[in-house]
Amino acid sequence: MTDLFWPGDERAGSHFSAEDFVGAMLAVEEDWLGRGFSTPVDAEQLALDAEAGGNPVIPLLRILREQHPEAHRGLTSQDVVDSALMRMADSAVATLRRDLRVVTDRLAALASEHRGTPMVARTLTQHAVPTTFGFRIAAWLTAVLDADDDLARLAFPQQLGGAAGTRAAIVELGRESPADVPRWHTTRAPVTRIGDALVGCTDACARIANDVLTLSRPEIGELAEGSGGGSSTMPNKANPVLSVLVRRAALTTPQLAATLHLAAAQQVDDRADGGWHAEWATLRDLVRRTLVAASQTAELVTDLRVDTDRMAATLAAAGDAVLAEQRSITDDPAPTYLGDATAYVDQVVARARRTPEEPS
Amino acid sequence: MTDLFWPGDERAGSHFSAEDFVGAMLAVEEDWLGRGFSTPVDAEQLALDAEAGGNPVIPLLRILREQHPEAHRGLTSQDVVDSALMRMADSAVATLRRDLRVVTDRLAALASEHRGTPMVARTLTQHAVPTTFGFRIAAWLTAVLDADDDLARLAFPQQLGGAAGTRAAIVELGRESPADVPRWHTTRAPVTRIGDALVGCTDACARIANDVLTLSRPEIGELAEGSGGGSSTMPNKANPVLSVLVRRAALTTPQLAATLHLAAAQQVDDRADGGWHAEWATLRDLVRRTLVAASQTAELVTDLRVDTDRMAATLAAAGDAVLAEQRSITDDPAPTYLGDATAYVDQVVARARRTPEEPS
Amino acid sequence: MTDLFWPGDERAGSHFSAEDFVGAMLAVEEDWLGRGFSTPVDAEQLALDAEAGGNPVIPLLRILREQHPEAHRGLTSQDVVDSALMRMADSAVATLRRDLRVVTDRLAALASEHRGTPMVARTLTQHAVPTTFGFRIAAWLTAVLDADDDLARLAFPQQLGGAAGTRAAIVELGRESPADVPRWHTTRAPVTRIGDALVGCTDACARIANDVLTLSRPEIGELAEGSGGGSSTMPNKANPVLSVLVRRAALTTPQLAATLHLAAAQQVDDRADGGWHAEWATLRDLVRRTLVAASQTAELVTDLRVDTDRMAATLAAAGDAVLAEQRSITDDPAPTYLGDATAYVDQVVARARRTPEEPS
Amino acid sequence: MTDLFWPGDERAGSHFSAEDFVGAMLAVEEDWLGRGFSTPVDAEQLALDAEAGGNPVIPLLRILREQHPEAHRGLTSQDVVDSALMRMADSAVATLRRDLRVVTDRLAALASEHRGTPMVARTLTQHAVPTTFGFRIAAWLTAVLDADDDLARLAFPQQLGGAAGTRAAIVELGRESPADVPRWHTTRAPVTRIGDALVGCTDACARIANDVLTLSRPEIGELAEGSGGGSSTMPNKANPVLSVLVRRAALTTPQLAATLHLAAAQQVDDRADGGWHAEWATLRDLVRRTLVAASQTAELVTDLRVDTDRMAATLAAAGDAVLAEQRSITDDPAPTYLGDATAYVDQVVARARRTPEEPS
Repeated sequence: MTDLFWPGDERAGSHFSAEDFVGAMLAVEEDWLGRGFSTPVDAEQLALDAEAGGNPVIPLLRILREQHPEAHRGLTSQDVVDSALMRMADSAVATLRRDLRVVTDRLAALASEHRGTPMVARTLTQHAVPTTFGFRIAAWLTAVLDADDDLARLAFPQQLGGAAGTRAAIVELGRESPADVPRWHTTRAPVTRIGDALVGCTDACARIANDVLTLSRPEIGELAEGSGGGSSTMPNKANPVLSVLVRRAALTTPQLAATLHLAAAQQVDDRADGGWHAEWATLRDLVRRTLVAASQTAELVTDLRVDTDRMAATLAAAGDAVLAEQRSITDDPAPTYLGDATAYVDQVVARARRTPEEPS
Repeated sequence: MTDLFWPGDERAGSHFSAEDFVGAMLAVEEDWLGRGFSTPVDAEQLALDAEAGGNPVIPLLRILREQHPEAHRGLTSQDVVDSALMRMADSAVATLRRDLRVVTDRLAALASEHRGTPMVARTLTQHAVPTTFGFRIAAWLTAVLDADDDLARLAFPQQLGGAAGTRAAIVELGRESPADVPRWHTTRAPVTRIGDALVGCTDACARIANDVLTLSRPEIGELAEGSGGGSSTMPNKANPVLSVLVRRAALTTPQLAATLHLAAAQQVDDRADGGWHAEWATLRDLVRRTLVAASQTAELVTDLRVDTDRMAATLAAAGDAVLAEQRSITDDPAPTYLGDATAYVDQVVARARRTPEEPS
Repeated sequence: MTDLFWPGDERAGSHFSAEDFVGAMLAVEEDWLGRGFSTPVDAEQLALDAEAGGNPVIPLLRILREQHPEAHRGLTSQDVVDSALMRMADSAVATLRRDLRVVTDRLAALASEHRGTPMVARTLTQHAVPTTFGFRIAAWLTAVLDADDDLARLAFPQQLGGAAGTRAAIVELGRESPADVPRWHTTRAPVTRIGDALVGCTDACARIANDVLTLSRPEIGELAEGSGGGSSTMPNKANPVLSVLVRRAALTTPQLAATLHLAAAQQVDDRADGGWHAEWATLRDLVRRTLVAASQTAELVTDLRVDTDRMAATLAAAGDAVLAEQRSITDDPAPTYLGDATAYVDQVVARARRTPEEPS
Repeated sequence: MTDLFWPGDERAGSHFSAEDFVGAMLAVEEDWLGRGFSTPVDAEQLALDAEAGGNPVIPLLRILREQHPEAHRGLTSQDVVDSALMRMADSAVATLRRDLRVVTDRLAALASEHRGTPMVARTLTQHAVPTTFGFRIAAWLTAVLDADDDLARLAFPQQLGGAAGTRAAIVELGRESPADVPRWHTTRAPVTRIGDALVGCTDACARIANDVLTLSRPEIGELAEGSGGGSSTMPNKANPVLSVLVRRAALTTPQLAATLHLAAAQQVDDRADGGWHAEWATLRDLVRRTLVAASQTAELVTDLRVDTDRMAATLAAAGDAVLAEQRSITDDPAPTYLGDATAYVDQVVARARRTPEEPS
């Protein structure tokens, strides 16, 4: 089911869909049981039955135990939900990093291509000094590489603790207890770190989109989306729809990550009374919106149209004003006033190329 | 489709579902056209086609104009989406207020019943002075009545401005322009007010849930949910699931309302480049979560079990300590130390009963 | 002490300063006691002593009781802090509304002046159809009037309940208990409503600032701040500093209001264990930032420079494209395509003039 | 100046005070100039003069250039403000980590001491199965160690780019351009990472405080703060003030970190029009509140009183119910039902002891 309230939602595929959640919970239970389940599970019915116990594992178990009565023995609901969320997150982040790799590859190429393309720098909306479009792209690229660095550091731990984290039933059942699986039922850094890293991605994508939105204003006209979106009433319009939708996402994700932190800060006892439950949909929305934004950004930068003549014309029209700083420094100005912009572009492009091809 | 990541989601019914959104947009277009549409609209396909123009109206029009080529003439996408959101919100708030009325009726009855039930007041988690359970319920009731007052003040205006709000096409087409329909394409108080009022509701519901969670701890045992939720592994458990889920909602909604404000603060030009688009899913989630929380709270207070003996026993066990303030004031203490608690309860109950029976 | 981290902070004057807080708490205690205090209170020392009891009333009382041992009898700390916050908020909102009145008066005049000034409408950053600058200002004005309407509805109740809200000590002391003073120790709508209304103001101010920032870009040049800010290194720069700082505020206030709601949703028992304490600094920052933003907006719109020639030139350059909608409607287009923009401007200006001169 | 609205503020010392900010900006300018300044700088006057240019560097330069006219040549305001913020943050995080080290040392000792102390585990507020207090402390310790790991990864880069990041003036002046100093004027991961890591700390501190608040309720009585805070009216009260104030902080910091992300997502051009300016006070508040919370947590855990008899009594009173899971597994139950709790405690304690003594 694609979200009609979030155009572009289909780009997130089945990540964190209801079916994905059911599949991940099943996989956790199967791994633990050592056997597969063939009983069909109706995600809609599970959703309807989830409230009574406060989470979807309890109705799921009723189904699974019909086939294998010993299913789930030793686990608690939170083990299954948390492990399932992490499986889904792991897979989603791998997809996300592939999309970001498309972005960084394209930006590295664009930055190299435009390392010598002059344009005017703008600060606080006003013309400042000369720069290059390559330098601007180096900023975009830095933003995305920084975001990807944070994704690369994420871990997606299993959860395995039983009723209150002590693995009492597991030990009582004589099962081996894997010492390297951490317990984080009430310490939610694994979740908040994912949230924070995802927001870093939408921050980076929006940083690009904002420039495209500004520079594709008709009065500026230095950039344009590959093919703009139409209007319901004005035949003349070609709207920068991808940029608009990327920017949209970035207005919403910081508050979702804040919710994950607030939930973490409400942890108490051996399982929290609401803080845990607030995470699931929040993480889902955060993941899917980030996937959509990254995919839209990949398309945006791939098809981006650059008008270097217009850039040159704007800079020329800005005239002496943008050289005022240089004139205030020296009576004998150098012919260009671009500092080490080119070397910096090369440095950022080299950083992009150092990142391994297949991140996950 | 019930949300598997948000147990209890089905309580929100079809409010702000994809079908509801399609229906509301169709109703807006039909009202404007003065005729109905019989062409079927596939919500899923509409969602898939929504990205190209940035909103679902553009693909919808392609369908509608097959039947009535003159559909939508004079309108802009935002007229349709905004008017549809307001129709849905109006209906959802009416439902919400009915659920809150169940809550306030029940609380008014409970408060009257327990106006003389002694219990210990707690401040900063510690025993303070004597109070009554009726007085506590008066606080719950005040919270809900305040929230409902804010809902009662909401307006759900249509949107009608055409391409840039000036109604140029409407006038050109010779259509009558209704002067009493405001224009709020880039001034979003109608949206943020709804958001703020909804959060007021989850604040109020959580205020109740927090007390139930505290007072139903086994060591306190003064309250209990009617029937607790089970555990996936512990046969002994009866968890206060409704309270947990209400509390969950209230951890997430303030950030959603903040997103609506952030979107409002990003308004620019005659239609914003992302601030508008961020509202739709945010408002949807806010509405549905509030509906779920209110419905759960209605069930919670309807079935609430009160252990007045336990309340009395706790107060007795607290002993002289909770009369220390009284002793510090007078050498000749009154036999009770409840101030005007009873009169206040009656005052709040009277306020509850003044509210009209059928709010919408 | 002006906040070095928040340029413009001095515009908020002494509202919600430490001295203001001390003064407000003293006024509450004096009103209750019926007599004045002459003992000097050192706000810094009070701040240093506040942690031990968790709030500043406890060390304040030690000072006050040296002069009048019967001070505060019957009250609780929360009565004093809450009543003091409301006194400060009442006064700050009155100041705020006076600044907003400067804004609306100026905008009403500007809107009338420019009701016939043609400019191009922009949607999703692109040229759409013709409009007038007066119509744009009508949007700004609507935003501010809507915000002011919400301020006008605010109440600033006293708090009076004693140790646990029941007024037990007040009754025991034989003091009259004012029935019309509500009790809201754990139901925080009075606080969250103020927060929400304040954010509405920064939303409205930012909506104006965003347009100024866009339209004062040198490539557009239709608006300019009266006198721009300088640069530390570029003699050529005239930055739209007021707009930048207004926009800054609006990026921060929605999250502050969300914090007030989160605190409200954490209310429990007869005094909350953290939810109450989180309000004080949050409300302070929200109030001061809103005051600063409103004052900056008043200066911004008062000194705004409008380049009507540039507006006309942009519209002319946009050419036929912005009449495409009109052409798609009729073969015999009217000479202008402005709909009822002028009538709408007049309607909004009339609304502005209906608002009473002295709001508080 | 200690913040009267934030009891405990003095614990943050001078970190991010106005004087600290002035000092850090001066240090940046001195390092760049290669010489010191002796001219006194009045922080209050600087604050009053900061609005005109939108930041405090411009008035600062007027002072500095009286002494050394060549001061600041090649830099831009943002170079100075950003580098100053990072110097302050670096120092504050070092202090913070020392406080967290006090917390982890104490928790490691407590966990070891109580590795065999039986208590009842609680999930969703209800009794679950037996556990140990050491196991609970291992959760607290994990939370703090996770938070500290994130702090340990932070970098505090200088900023050096000149007017638009290209170092044009620096090159023109013939100064060496340090290639290893990154440029992040419009890519704000260095700021958002600090924000996210700080919130991780308040999450962890609140996770401890929540348990203390719950377990020090008189009906539970298993923990107590070393010395509780008094009441303004009730001689009997000993309030868990430190826990209350820690919890307070954690309700506010996630929204502050969200603001840093929102500001990052508003980056545009070569210097943002508000997104940059929103960071300064936000980072200041986030840093100071985290320092206060960590210091309060250190005192809280240092002086924590543990009532092991009460823990044992609660577990005994819970009786057979908390062994229901064990009974459902086996007819021949082991004498204890604590799983690998003890081994896990040892594992977490070992992790704590691996962390280097002097983190910064």
